[in-house]
Amino acid sequence: MIHTRILGIDTSLRSTGVGIVESQGSKMIPIYYGVIKTKSGHPLSDSLLHLQSELEKVIIEHQPQVVAVEGIFFARNVKTAMLLSHARGALIAECAKKGLSVYEYEPRKVKMAVAGYGAAKKEQMQEMVKTLLHLEKKPPHDAADALALAITHLHNSTSIRLNAIKPI
Amino acid sequence: MIHTRILGIDTSLRSTGVGIVESQGSKMIPIYYGVIKTKSGHPLSDSLLHLQSELEKVIIEHQPQVVAVEGIFFARNVKTAMLLSHARGALIAECAKKGLSVYEYEPRKVKMAVAGYGAAKKEQMQEMVKTLLHLEKKPPHDAADALALAITHLHNSTSIRLNAIKPI
Repeated sequence: MIHTRILGIDTSLRSTGVGIVESQGSKMIPIYYGVIKTKSGHPLSDSLLHLQSELEKVIIEHQPQVVAVEGIFFARNVKTAMLLSHARGALIAECAKKGLSVYEYEPRKVKMAVAGYGAAKKEQMQEMVKTLLHLEKKPPHDAADALALAITHLHNSTSIRLNAIKPI
Repeated sequence: MIHTRILGIDTSLRSTGVGIVESQGSKMIPIYYGVIKTKSGHPLSDSLLHLQSELEKVIIEHQPQVVAVEGIFFARNVKTAMLLSHARGALIAECAKKGLSVYEYEPRKVKMAVAGYGAAKKEQMQEMVKTLLHLEKKPPHDAADALALAITHLHNSTSIRLNAIKPI
């Protein structure tokens, strides 16, 4: 039986969710989840370094084989989007450094894959992630979103759409 | 005599300029300049990793003590600004990993410091950088902008404004 470990990352400058799910045949097993926090008021460079080094620890400890991140398809607030992009750049670079391919999924697609509804709310996503992975309690929002990304990638990579998705 | 080596980085996803200037008393000595190119059509993750690893080589070889980057104060095109921010995030994280403080300067301030004119054109900046650093030929645009950032930081850090600038 092929075991595939997916690392989902809900990228953010202040609160990045990470979640690892392993597929064992038709089963999905939760391996790890957590949130990497950075402090506001600290230099941006410190925050980016902290994101990279905490992510590195997770990758080394849990050895995922592939990464799923959220696509950026919005720009409600340009400043926020640019800060998020700094964090995303540092995190994606760290994944590449570890030899991992990175795939991106639209938020709507993640909601569809996990909750069956493209406009699902955060609470619904937490509940669905808890149910799908048989967790004892709801993971924090950001970690739930990361686990949802990993689940979405598993759904896609085991479907006929495998050849249609390309790493970013 | 205190020697200070400044690494200027003109961040970009496709063509990042780097330039190192050393102050030796009142003199400014050019140490190195170059451009880190990435290929379009390749995965974003590969480009970010390439930027980080090429920058790492420059830092290891030339041992700068501090870094100057351009501040992002524009958003003509949100998509472009977000891609630039990915590159900037990866590059700033690499500097932080090497223990370097990163300072940012508004483009207008860099032009003022180097050309004495806040709306100086790229060609004027190349000419002024060549003159100020006694280079034999004009550096490429992106490298000239990087050297200009290093010169700007030297101007600022040796002035009474030292305490007014903070790393990002």
